[in-house]
Amino acid sequence: MPTTAPVPTLVDVLTAARTASTALATATTAVKDAALRAIAHELRAGTADIVTANHEDLVAGQDDGLSSGLLDRLRLDVDRVDALADAVEHVVGLTDPVGQHVRGSVLPNGLQLTQVRVPFGVVGAIYEARPNVTVDIASLALKSGNAVVLRGGSAAQRTNAVLVRRIQDAVASVGLPRALVQTIDEFGRPGATELMRARGLVDVLIPRGSASLIQTVVAESQVPVIETGAGVVHVFLDESAPLDRAVDIVLNSKVQRPSVCNALETLLVHERAAERLLPALTARLRAAGVTLRGDDATRTIVPGVLRATEADWATESMDLDLSIRVVPDVDAAMAHIARWSTHHTESIVTNDVDTAEHFLAGVDSAVVMVNASTRFTDGGEFGFGAEVGISTQKLHARGPMGLLELTSTKWLVRGQGHIRG
Amino acid sequence: MPTTAPVPTLVDVLTAARTASTALATATTAVKDAALRAIAHELRAGTADIVTANHEDLVAGQDDGLSSGLLDRLRLDVDRVDALADAVEHVVGLTDPVGQHVRGSVLPNGLQLTQVRVPFGVVGAIYEARPNVTVDIASLALKSGNAVVLRGGSAAQRTNAVLVRRIQDAVASVGLPRALVQTIDEFGRPGATELMRARGLVDVLIPRGSASLIQTVVAESQVPVIETGAGVVHVFLDESAPLDRAVDIVLNSKVQRPSVCNALETLLVHERAAERLLPALTARLRAAGVTLRGDDATRTIVPGVLRATEADWATESMDLDLSIRVVPDVDAAMAHIARWSTHHTESIVTNDVDTAEHFLAGVDSAVVMVNASTRFTDGGEFGFGAEVGISTQKLHARGPMGLLELTSTKWLVRGQGHIRG
Repeated sequence: MPTTAPVPTLVDVLTAARTASTALATATTAVKDAALRAIAHELRAGTADIVTANHEDLVAGQDDGLSSGLLDRLRLDVDRVDALADAVEHVVGLTDPVGQHVRGSVLPNGLQLTQVRVPFGVVGAIYEARPNVTVDIASLALKSGNAVVLRGGSAAQRTNAVLVRRIQDAVASVGLPRALVQTIDEFGRPGATELMRARGLVDVLIPRGSASLIQTVVAESQVPVIETGAGVVHVFLDESAPLDRAVDIVLNSKVQRPSVCNALETLLVHERAAERLLPALTARLRAAGVTLRGDDATRTIVPGVLRATEADWATESMDLDLSIRVVPDVDAAMAHIARWSTHHTESIVTNDVDTAEHFLAGVDSAVVMVNASTRFTDGGEFGFGAEVGISTQKLHARGPMGLLELTSTKWLVRGQGHIRG
Repeated sequence: MPTTAPVPTLVDVLTAARTASTALATATTAVKDAALRAIAHELRAGTADIVTANHEDLVAGQDDGLSSGLLDRLRLDVDRVDALADAVEHVVGLTDPVGQHVRGSVLPNGLQLTQVRVPFGVVGAIYEARPNVTVDIASLALKSGNAVVLRGGSAAQRTNAVLVRRIQDAVASVGLPRALVQTIDEFGRPGATELMRARGLVDVLIPRGSASLIQTVVAESQVPVIETGAGVVHVFLDESAPLDRAVDIVLNSKVQRPSVCNALETLLVHERAAERLLPALTARLRAAGVTLRGDDATRTIVPGVLRATEADWATESMDLDLSIRVVPDVDAAMAHIARWSTHHTESIVTNDVDTAEHFLAGVDSAVVMVNASTRFTDGGEFGFGAEVGISTQKLHARGPMGLLELTSTKWLVRGQGHIRG
């Protein structure tokens, strides 16, 4: 009689990930880098397969009525696959955080304490219709010694299946376990729910995507989550802000790439600078296609500005929309930020040193800037070499996350028969 | 007509905590230390009130049938109040982590990046019948710049109410807001549930107490949690373990204070050392009152040992119980640990350097030791000066938590009109 192989359960997948992570935790950097080079090679060699599978996802997505923005994020062509392979090779050059000594001491009793960086173990990722995240997270997790379990969503399921198989082939070619990188798309939504409840089997869960996806994961997950959140981002133009600098920074923050989380939402202007700055600044913003909303003071100075509502102060724009409010002073600006910000990034334009330091110390956001565009909140710009996401929570990681933020620590204690008195 | 003050809601309490935390975030160390000294003074001055309230809680607890262990944890007498005040004064001497530079760089474009330590903001604590935690957490939170919201449980409600009022009086006496330290016991269980759902208002939640309390908080909380977990703790006696050192470390780990999380549960013994070590070692353990359970190999070598079950490998003892298993080698010991440990603390007794390093590298626990008693996993022993708890999760903090672990970070970015190209 023929025997049937048992269908693996999600717990089987997670257990295999845990076992594989144990092998990777003590792998040398050289082995991990060899795996990364093999992945880049496999992706390039598999371009035709990847693009074919992606084409099937795109056709299905069009039939399902996905928006053009989602379809563009979903699309992989030959150039984009090549860019993904490049990105994996770039990770080879990054510093391996595993084994780094964080701190240590020799206690008065002679006991030696060392806190060292270790991988988390098993990292879960939940995201939507972005096959590039599959490759990004897999390569960053691998370099930081972690196994990954990926839930990439049904829209990219065929693409992700091919990508994961290629990555597994590459990992196996250097003698590492295939279960280091696994997709659970086949388990559907129940699989995502089970992943969120798998505390003990999964060490950390990273949601990437829309605000509603992230909120669902935050609300439902029993596994510790790193929230990579939305940005309602502010620039405050202080009384002393020079016009040219104000224009440069506001334009760059708002217009350079309005669809991302570090782009500007709300401009706050000191009331004693509003008449000097707003006419020229708003003319430049309008010339760049920005729709302006503002409070009464703004609308008095700049004709034709739409009336801003509380919803405008609270909303991440993702587009060429800007809300403007005139405030009496820096403390009023900081109070507005405390009330409405998502604590991602805020910047002050000022020529006054005390005001700058007051703003830096008092604003409670992941990144607080003086005289710089908010667009610099980015793992690449920060010199991390790669970015897992931008954390807007305060636990574990805050701001752009690189390889370091994909690690935990453990304490090594070396004694010579020490006992406690 | 008389007006009635509106009854504050839990959201009012949490909002007041947030506002108060803003004032504390930029307070100098000198101001925070003055508040701590005032707290110690108020506790001593209020000893009679505290002991009276505590007596009412104790009487109610006896009527409610609380165990003698719980009643002992609940009890505050004159000496214990004095010890609490001493502990608060001790926190004055600890290094203030707020404002410390974690890392920084000047980017190629001249942008200056500095990652600095900042308070979380609002810390929630959920615990049971231990009024000393009220004072401990309040003083550590204050020193690290955080407001606290305390849910101490109904059994200690009268005691905690008096303690919190005294602490608030002290805080106010140095000009800081009373809302820095608040209890929500009056809101009952619904208040605890609401606290766990208050993501955005509370930055981190720390449960302290029984395994079931911690599991409830982990399962229900949408606020990020630091799990301070149970310890199923292991010692492995390697083939080369000297008898005297093995006896010292096992006895100290098991017997010195069996009711705490860093005490030993399971002894693993190399099969080529079992006959040499177990007879003398088990005789000493029995003389100390320890009940022994073991696998077949152990029971062959040591008559009268009870049969160990899987439940024994999985259970935190909290008492004078020890489970013993003979294993073929260090890898089998590590596999047992990977399967059954809660990843709190494990120790190897060995004279072989390679085996020691293999164990240190391969065991995935918060604290991994060589030739030392597991009882050293403790914030006080580690030189932190205080302990918030011992984290058994990997996110944010792992192992003993001191003041540093009550902080987050933020990035300060200083430019001179920098925009992104």
